[in-house]
Parts: sequence; structure tokens; C-alpha cells
Amino acid sequence: MSMLDDINYPEDLRKLSISKLETVCDELRQYIIHVLADNPGHFASSLGTIELTVALHYVFNTPCDKIVWDVGHQSYSHKILTGRQKVFQTLRKFKGISGFPNPEESEYDAFIAGHASTSISAALGISIASMLKNETKNVIAVIGDGSMTGGLAFEALNNASSHPNNLLIVLNDNNMAIDNNVGGISQYLVDITTSQTYNKLRYNIFRGMKKLHLISDDSKGIILRFNNSLKALLTKQHNLFEGFSVRYFGPVDGHDVQGLVRILNDIKDLKGPKLLHIRTVKGKGFKPAEQSATVWHAPGKFDPMTGERIIVRALDEPQLYQHVFGYTLLELAEQNDKILGITPAMPTGCSMNIMMKAMPDRVFDVGIAEAHAVTFSAGLAKEGMIPFCNIYSSFSQRAYDQIIHDAALQKLNVVLCLDRAGLVGEDGPTHHGAFDLAFLRCIPNLIISSPINEHALRNLMYTATYSNAGTFVIRYPKGGGELTDWRNEMEILPIGKGKKLKDGEKIAVLSIGPIGYIARKAIELAEKENVTPIAHYDMIFLKPVDEDLLHEVARKYDVIVTLENGVIKGGLGSAVLEFLADNGYKNSVKRLGIQDTFVEHGSIPELYKCCELDAESIKSVLCELV
Amino acid sequence: MSMLDDINYPEDLRKLSISKLETVCDELRQYIIHVLADNPGHFASSLGTIELTVALHYVFNTPCDKIVWDVGHQSYSHKILTGRQKVFQTLRKFKGISGFPNPEESEYDAFIAGHASTSISAALGISIASMLKNETKNVIAVIGDGSMTGGLAFEALNNASSHPNNLLIVLNDNNMAIDNNVGGISQYLVDITTSQTYNKLRYNIFRGMKKLHLISDDSKGIILRFNNSLKALLTKQHNLFEGFSVRYFGPVDGHDVQGLVRILNDIKDLKGPKLLHIRTVKGKGFKPAEQSATVWHAPGKFDPMTGERIIVRALDEPQLYQHVFGYTLLELAEQNDKILGITPAMPTGCSMNIMMKAMPDRVFDVGIAEAHAVTFSAGLAKEGMIPFCNIYSSFSQRAYDQIIHDAALQKLNVVLCLDRAGLVGEDGPTHHGAFDLAFLRCIPNLIISSPINEHALRNLMYTATYSNAGTFVIRYPKGGGELTDWRNEMEILPIGKGKKLKDGEKIAVLSIGPIGYIARKAIELAEKENVTPIAHYDMIFLKPVDEDLLHEVARKYDVIVTLENGVIKGGLGSAVLEFLADNGYKNSVKRLGIQDTFVEHGSIPELYKCCELDAESIKSVLCELV
Repeated sequence: MSMLDDINYPEDLRKLSISKLETVCDELRQYIIHVLADNPGHFASSLGTIELTVALHYVFNTPCDKIVWDVGHQSYSHKILTGRQKVFQTLRKFKGISGFPNPEESEYDAFIAGHASTSISAALGISIASMLKNETKNVIAVIGDGSMTGGLAFEALNNASSHPNNLLIVLNDNNMAIDNNVGGISQYLVDITTSQTYNKLRYNIFRGMKKLHLISDDSKGIILRFNNSLKALLTKQHNLFEGFSVRYFGPVDGHDVQGLVRILNDIKDLKGPKLLHIRTVKGKGFKPAEQSATVWHAPGKFDPMTGERIIVRALDEPQLYQHVFGYTLLELAEQNDKILGITPAMPTGCSMNIMMKAMPDRVFDVGIAEAHAVTFSAGLAKEGMIPFCNIYSSFSQRAYDQIIHDAALQKLNVVLCLDRAGLVGEDGPTHHGAFDLAFLRCIPNLIISSPINEHALRNLMYTATYSNAGTFVIRYPKGGGELTDWRNEMEILPIGKGKKLKDGEKIAVLSIGPIGYIARKAIELAEKENVTPIAHYDMIFLKPVDEDLLHEVARKYDVIVTLENGVIKGGLGSAVLEFLADNGYKNSVKRLGIQDTFVEHGSIPELYKCCELDAESIKSVLCELV
Repeated sequence: MSMLDDINYPEDLRKLSISKLETVCDELRQYIIHVLADNPGHFASSLGTIELTVALHYVFNTPCDKIVWDVGHQSYSHKILTGRQKVFQTLRKFKGISGFPNPEESEYDAFIAGHASTSISAALGISIASMLKNETKNVIAVIGDGSMTGGLAFEALNNASSHPNNLLIVLNDNNMAIDNNVGGISQYLVDITTSQTYNKLRYNIFRGMKKLHLISDDSKGIILRFNNSLKALLTKQHNLFEGFSVRYFGPVDGHDVQGLVRILNDIKDLKGPKLLHIRTVKGKGFKPAEQSATVWHAPGKFDPMTGERIIVRALDEPQLYQHVFGYTLLELAEQNDKILGITPAMPTGCSMNIMMKAMPDRVFDVGIAEAHAVTFSAGLAKEGMIPFCNIYSSFSQRAYDQIIHDAALQKLNVVLCLDRAGLVGEDGPTHHGAFDLAFLRCIPNLIISSPINEHALRNLMYTATYSNAGTFVIRYPKGGGELTDWRNEMEILPIGKGKKLKDGEKIAVLSIGPIGYIARKAIELAEKENVTPIAHYDMIFLKPVDEDLLHEVARKYDVIVTLENGVIKGGLGSAVLEFLADNGYKNSVKRLGIQDTFVEHGSIPELYKCCELDAESIKSVLCELV
């Protein structure tokens, strides 16, 4: 680690001769492998973009020039090169540096990016703003081929040529998002790569002309005409991106750092929007990751020498909620041939790969395309199918209109399974599924549920399958469940009915979802300090809310405590308040949940504590109320 | 109207010889013109798709085959041909037929479509479901070139070739959405149309082979190889849609009904997803509409002979809110060169065309692309600009994640102006801006406001410009305001502060937005029946909510009535309940707003009455509470 020690900022990098850059890349790669072996993060993506990152900071004048990373997974070497080498070990830790670009952390981070497909839109805005201010700023969007399937990226690409700007889009193509990439675009990028001759010829002619100083702003029109003639002569393929009036360069080897520096220097001062297509390998330089990039997307801890992954979860521990979902979906699908699985590029993340393997024709990975996933599911449901559409809670924000307009309004039997609901830990504010209860509750016709444990999850999936009740939301958290023996005999639950778990006096706690286990613990602790028994109800359904249960609670208890793993404005607590007001009850209500703020990153237990949703904090609240 | 009288359903149409279809089209056109002259609706689009509609129902076996219309504007002749000729005069009227396809209205309406860009996703779902059920159903998505700029359409196009299906996409290209279409795709479609020779040759060869029975499923591979060789020989252009592995046919004249029947017959049994590109003229057959399609998108009443539009609004009446927005935006932009205008394809609808005309370089029409509009605005704001991004409330549902992830999380100064908030009248359930208050309130950092009248709208726009307070939402309704003299001297309002309009006893009404005028009227009526004076407060801000005002109200009044032009679950009423609970107040609260249901279509006054939000209904509530 001799060279990297002296590179604190890109200006240090730029002092090096181009021949040293490969060594810098090697050192970066080793550093990332060693840090991530012990401190888990997004591994394979970060190894794939090392050469690109070095080349970008070498060629461009960051932070004056702006690099907008699409999804921060790729930005680890960027963080190391921009003043954060010494704190890189704190990556994704509570109070440490973020796993995603964050402008509050560094002026080199041009824009937040936790969700996919945003970079072209944001960079286009930055680029146009800088032109309006008469600055000569270069703006670069770095986007993966997976993110390229998101509608937002296309909306931006369509808009890129409409207004003067010098945006450079770097398409980092590894034929992967987290899982293998799918769809027409993906195939197109393979095709384009196999027609290298023409692209190479074009580029060589371009370089030659540039060397002869034949390329200038004045001669731009001529060059374009020449280019078009060249196309007419040579092309076997009209370029899709040029169909959007964005100039195309590539594909080039994304691991040849000197080659990248050369081409970036060549094209950086060209006017107008342009796209550079680079080919990279996810997990580059670490064999196990190169061989199975999906597993190594976020592998957890591992041995940096052998590549052996250190599996923390013991066999006799509860399984992950996602696995229970995945196995149960297959079990249901085996019994009912109307059940289909739909995932926006997350078959592994949500464990739909279990059904996919067994029934490839009945699972649809639609690309990073949450909006399409929901409307497509609605179309399937319109024909009598029962689509289980699984979307991470925070990503479901991207399908909000489709949930309202295409599913709920038509009362279609789409089963919307929201994984990663509530606090998700290390991925932080962009990924917490904090808002779903609040933003879904205002939608008419919707059924909204959350299981307290794995048995309830299975029962809700079973109920959604056989109740023909319209659009049915089931939200559950990241991580492990509560039970080691999760395979219950499934049963149909009455829709809109909660459950009394425990009687009490004076105070009743109403919880929804697995946070009910924390409530139970808190109640036990409180009852040790005070003799008053505290009642506990599991709501199961946020909507329709159980009015019988609420009448019982309102009549029997003075104080009602609501508890949810979601934002406090508009969720379960508000539903209870609305019921009480509508029915003239005057109980005191204490609402517990995520306060009205974006929650930082850290481990899930740390965040629960930070949000005062751990058993100890809740106990204190209960003791005060007794 | 001799032929049309005998056509009640497509089966009647199919009995006619092909040579009669032109007459059917003529009669349909005259009928639509005459009905819409007196009963306003979406005019220009519906005239553009007459020949296509006749050809589709003539060739395909509807309702078994499914036509999925993208945005219902185009579907009027479809409605007339599918059993709704006799009730067509009730179009968009209260309790009449809907202006959009609605499966509850007719089995010929395959899917609801009030928002753009949904058709390919929905039709793909229907098509795949029908294949899984081993049905031989044809599924057709009809999408305009404007809707094609929406990200959802691209997500679907990208996904179309991934799974076996026989979807037919008809691209209805008139180079218009409501305003002129913009962006790369739009230019691309112009290019493609000018390279007709190759496309025509391809199609002729295809037809010849089909006639010679050289085309069958078995020979599909050969044909494709042949086609590719042909391309290699002849193409000057690789087709963008074929870049998505969707077979392309066209462009053909969309007003040649016999030609359309021919080509639809030719391609309908081809396996795999395919796209037929037709060129049409918006407003076809009615000269004034052909000449200015934007004006004639929804022209209101007009004289069918002269084309003179009957303008209902008198000069001394209050102006439309959208005009006040449009003129004020220009006024602000003249004073502050950081102000920019951003619209997703609605420059005329939101009156940003006023600024666009005066300052074309500072207004950005980004296409039907609400998500991109917000992230692009966030990018502009990151560089210190003050983007006013104007989106219809119900369409803002499509930018929900971008509001959270790209604007609010980074506290960027995006001024999000939501036009058409609340009940919008004749466009019905897909278009009511009913949910924004509820779904926005749970987002941290956001400022959410709604002006009671035009002066307040201008003050809020001024405040948003100069307060540097982060993402700032201003929502206002469709239609006319309250004041004839709306050009006040603008002033900065204190953020999060409401206003007492009137003192009272026992009861206080808290309203937000122009519905405050209805509250005032209701209070006047109630005070006539009972002597008790009723207090009235204009909240102005939903978030941050005015806690000082609420303390005052909670202490002084027993009963609090909240009133909002939005859904009752999660909005202003819930905010007030949360405040009272958090502060231990026990006031009675009556929440008035839109109930938890999708509201039908009809005139705005009819819908207010239907939702019991008219002055008379509110008066009754107040009298009961006194």
C-alpha cells in the first residue's frame, strides 16, 4: 500500500504519470477486499468500477466537475480517493460513512443515490444549471446496464437531447444488476458488443481527425454529416442511443485504465450529450466474486485469502423472512396454478429464485422496473391470475401511482409483498421502508397487513390467495424471524381482524408486525417494575382496521399505546386516533414509531435504540404511563 | 346517420364489407363532433383514432380479443361501437358514462386508463396470462407517441420480449401528446417516417411471402434470418424498437381504414411481440382542430359548423388558478434569474406556456415523465437554481419516490406546484387529486401548503422563491379562483403559520385551501340558523402544522371541525388529531373531506355535493355540533 498512502484526494492522483494508474487500481482493489472481508458491504459492484473511478478522477477536475453515481454500490473506490481512505473502515457503520454517495459527507459526492436509475436525470439537471450559470463544468453520470432498464433512466435519456448540455453518460455494462440482467436492452447491449468493428472504426477515424485538429466547434456540423455518411456506408446497426440523439462511443474495456483515460480525454470536451459504453466484470480481481456475482453482491463477512464466506446465521436459528416468503410462495404455487411470481430484478433478494428454479415459466423478473411490475401484475390479475408481486418497501415508492391507478382502483387481486419494510439497517435513509403504512393507508380498496411472525406471514399469503379480496398488501421486515419451526399448516385469516395476545388493566398496547415481539418484551419488563398488567393486541391489519377490537380497547383501557415499525405521521397510530375521534372516545393515546425524520444508517438494533423503539425505551414509556 | 344506427356492437360492424368502413368512419366523426360540441370532452384525440378503432374492431374478435387503450382520450369511437352509442351524450356527466375505458362499464373496456403509458404493461400481463391459460387471445395495446415518452412504457417495452407472448402494440403517432411532443423519441419517429422506402420494401416482401404461404411458424427462423440479411443489405437505420427485440411494422397511414384492416390482418397471427407504427392527425376531419390540436385537446363547447369556441368564463370573473400560477411564475422569473419552469408535457394545461413564450430557454418540457421532472428539478436545485416543477396532483403519484429520495432527503429547493389538487370533476376517479395531502404529509423535511385564494397562491410562490427552505409543495385546485383582482403585491409568508379568519364560540373550523370559501359560506348559513358564532382558521400550511394556532384552538373551543379537499385518512384532520393526542387535549374533532373511496365523475359542484363538502352539507354538520 505504498502509493495509496499518498493519495488523499484526486489532486494527488492527477500528479501521477498515467503508467502508475494500474498500480493504484491494484492497491485500491486489495484495500477494498481486505476492508470488506471484515466489514460487510456491496462487494462485487465496487470491484467492477475501480479502473473507471481512477480514470474519471484522473481526467476530470473533481469536485468542480461532477460525477453522479447511479446507486452508490459502485462508489467505494470513489470514497477512498476523495478524502475518506482513513475512515473507510467505518463504512455503513452507525455514525460511520454512508454506503452511498452523500453530499453531506463530501463535496465530491454530487448527489444522493440509493435507488437505481436516477443519475441521468440528476446529472442532466446539474449540467443544464451549470450552463445557465455560464460555468464550464463537466458532468458525468455513471449508470449500470441494470439501472438502464428503469423507466426513469429512459425518461432522462429521451429528454437529454432536448436542451443544450454537455452531459457524459458512462454506461457501466456488466450484464448484471444484482441478478442477471433481463430484457430487450440487455440483449441489445450484447448485440452491440459483438459489432465492435464498426464502432472501433468510427472511433479511430474520430481520433485521427481530432489529432489533425479537424474537430472543433465550428466544424461540428461537418463532422456530424461526415459521421452520418460513414454510417450510411458502414453500419449494420443504427445505434439505439443515437436514436435518442445521444452520441455513442464504445464499447471499450472498462478494466483498461489507460485506455479509459485516453478515451475520456478524447471525448470530454465534445459539445452535446454523449454516452460511453464500457464493459466491466462484476467482482473483477477476486475470483469467487467474478464467478458468482449475485452471491457476492453483498456477501457479508468472508476470508480474503480463500474467499470462504462466513455464514453467521446458525441452522437452528429462525430463517430470514425472505426465505419463508420464498418457500411458502413455491408451496402455494404447487397447489394453485394461478399463482405467479413477479419481481423487479430482485429474485435472489426476495428469495423468489426458489420458485423461479422450480417453475421458471411462472416467475417473471421484469428488470429494475417497479412501476411496470405492478401494472404488469394488474394485467395478469385482470385475466384471473394471482400474481405475487414482491417489491422492497422503499422501492415500492416507485410504483405508487400504479398501486392506486392500475391495481386498487380496479380492485384487482394483486398480492403486493413488501419486503424490507421498516428499518433496514446499514443501507440507511434511502432504503428504510419507513413510509409504506402511511402512504398506502390513504388508498381506497386496499387491504394492508403485516404479520407478527412467520406463521402469520404464511397465513396472510394463504389468505391473499384464496380470499379474492382485491389488492392485498403484506409487509414484513428485513432479516430473521422469530420461530425456528416456521412451517405451520396454513389457514385463512378473517380480513380486517386483529388478535388479543394478552389482557391487562388501564393500558393497552396495539402493535402491528414483528415489532409486536419487542412490545411483548417491553411489557414484560414494565410489569416487573410495576404490578399493573398491560394488555397487548396484534392488529395484523392496518386496513380495514379492526373496529370491534378498537371498540373493546377504547371501552376497557384509559391509555392506548400504538407501536409500528414505520413513520409516525399517518400510520397505525393515526388510524387509531381517527377511529377514536369518529366514535367520540376520549382515551389518551401515545403513538410510538419512527419520528418525522430520515433515519441514518447503522445496525438494526442500533437504529431501534436510536429511534427509541427498543424494548428498554418502550418499557420506560409504559412505566411513565402506568 | 344511416349505417351507424345499425351498429350497436362490433359484430354488426364485422358484417359489413370492407368498402363500407369509410362511411362508418365518416358517420362516427360527424357524430362525435356534434355530441362534443354541446357536451365537452377530449376532442382532438378522439377524432384521430376513428379509423384505427374501426379497423381494430373489424379485424379482431372483441371482446374476447382485448384492446387496451393508453389514456382513454382516444377511446370515444370505441365506446360508440361497443354498445354505448345511445348513452354517448351522457359522456363524462354525473352518473353518465366515463370519459375513459372502464371495465365496470363494458366488457369491451379491457383496462382502466386515465394516466398515460400504462397500456403496454397491462396488455403484456393480459397477453401472458391468456397464454398461460392456453387461450388464443389477441391482445392489442394502443399507445400514443406522447405516452411513449413515459418511463413505464419503456420498462414494458424492455420486458416485452422476455417472456412468450403475441402482444401487438399500435403506436399512434401524431407528434403530439396534449402539447407538441418533445425529446429524442419524438425526433426518432420523425426520422423513421422519412425513411419509408426501406420499411415499405420490407413490408411488401413480407406480404409477398405471406401470399405465397412461405410464412408459417415453422419457417419463422428462416424469415427472421432473411429479414436480417435484408436489413444488412438495405438498412440505413437499425430500428429502435427492434433494439428491444420487438418486431416493427410501419409507418402506415392511420386514416386509411382499408389499409389498416389489411395490415392488421397480415400481422395479427404472427407470434411474438410486434409493433405497428401508424401516423395520424390529431383532430382529423375538423379543420380548426387539425390546425391547433392543443387548443382542441379539450376545447369546451363549440359551434360544430363554424368551429367557434364558446367561452363560458366572462372577463370580469376570477381567472383560473393555472393562469394565476402562469402569470405569477413569469413575474417572479423576470425578477430572479434562478427561477426555471419544469413541466412534464403540460405547458398549456398548467399555463407554463406563458413563461415558455417569454423565456424559452428557462422552461423545460420534459415529456410525459413526471419522475424525471422531479429528479431533473432536484439536479437543477443542487446547483442553486429554483425550479418550479408543476405537476397535476394525481400525476404526482408517479413521482412519489423522486419527491422522497431525490428532493426531500437532500432538502433541495424544488418548488413542487400541484395543479388540479382535490376533486377535478368530469375526468373522474383516475384524475382526482385526492391523495396528495395524505401521501406527502409522511415525508420528512417537506413543506406542504395550499393557498385559500389567488393572493395566497402568489404569496406562497414568492415565499418558496425567497425562503431557501427545502422542498416546498404548493397545491391548488382546478378551475377558477375567488378574486377578480388577483394581482396583489406579493409578500413573504411565515412558513408553518396559519391565520385566524374569524372568532367564535365553542366550535372552530380549520380549513386548508380554497375550500375555506365553502367553509365561510357554511358558517354564515349555520350562524343564521343558530346564534352561536363559529370560529374559522385558514391553516395555509399542512406541514409544518401551526402548533401555536392549534394550542389556541384546542384551549378555546370544545369542538374542532377540519375541512380539506382531500382524502380523510391521513390529511389535515389526522394532523390535528395527532397534535391533540401528543399534547393531551381532549377536544371533539369532526373531520370533513373526501371519504375513503374513489370518487366518480361529474361536475365539480355535483361531486362536492356527493361528497357532502358543499356549503349546505357542511352547514348541517355545524348545526348538529352546536
